[in-house]
Amino acid sequence: MICAEQRVAANGTSTTGPVTLINQFRVPEGRDAEFHDLWERTSRYFTRQPGFRSLRLHRAVNDDAVYRWVNVATWNSEADFRAAHATEEFREVVTAPGWEAFPSSPVLFEVVTAVD
Amino acid sequence: MICAEQRVAANGTSTTGPVTLINQFRVPEGRDAEFHDLWERTSRYFTRQPGFRSLRLHRAVNDDAVYRWVNVATWNSEADFRAAHATEEFREVVTAPGWEAFPSSPVLFEVVTAVD
Repeated sequence: MICAEQRVAANGTSTTGPVTLINQFRVPEGRDAEFHDLWERTSRYFTRQPGFRSLRLHRAVNDDAVYRWVNVATWNSEADFRAAHATEEFREVVTAPGWEAFPSSPVLFEVVTAVD
Repeated sequence: MICAEQRVAANGTSTTGPVTLINQFRVPEGRDAEFHDLWERTSRYFTRQPGFRSLRLHRAVNDDAVYRWVNVATWNSEADFRAAHATEEFREVVTAPGWEAFPSSPVLFEVVTAVD
């Protein structure tokens, strides 16, 4: 078992390597299908943007989690991630009717340790 | 861009496929090195357990996140994950001195949509 990647950037320096978005969603019980449909339509925008690498949309095994759905998406760089969030089309997809029911908590990360 | 895996289990049914742990940690500013050292020692236990697949330890790009460190780990099954959390060695590593300073919020998920 080895570390495939180990990189700790000093805080405060600009980030140039790959980044990972971890975005948690509050989804009321009984509205999973509605959320998932909306999310799929929105994610089609992001997966077409330059620098997009991958995503995994997760749903909690148990229903008692505060944030039952979590998207983990990787991008080539923070600059690519920011650019994808600065377009007119971005503003249109994230303000689509329905999203107000599913508050999210997006945070951007770097991978410090990876084990495969 | 295609979905490499798409699997939505009905709520309430038992989970037999792969699972993903997303574990968030509160780490006070200035204590990153102390947390990371403790986490590396603990993760050595988990990466040796049957059914462990992979992990990515993430640190937030910005310091204002509530949970600045997040571990995303995949396991072959929920049964493997539970077994790894039911041993005497598990109890020893997670009660090691130091952990009380870094509260965590672990939640178990299934992957619903994957795009690579």
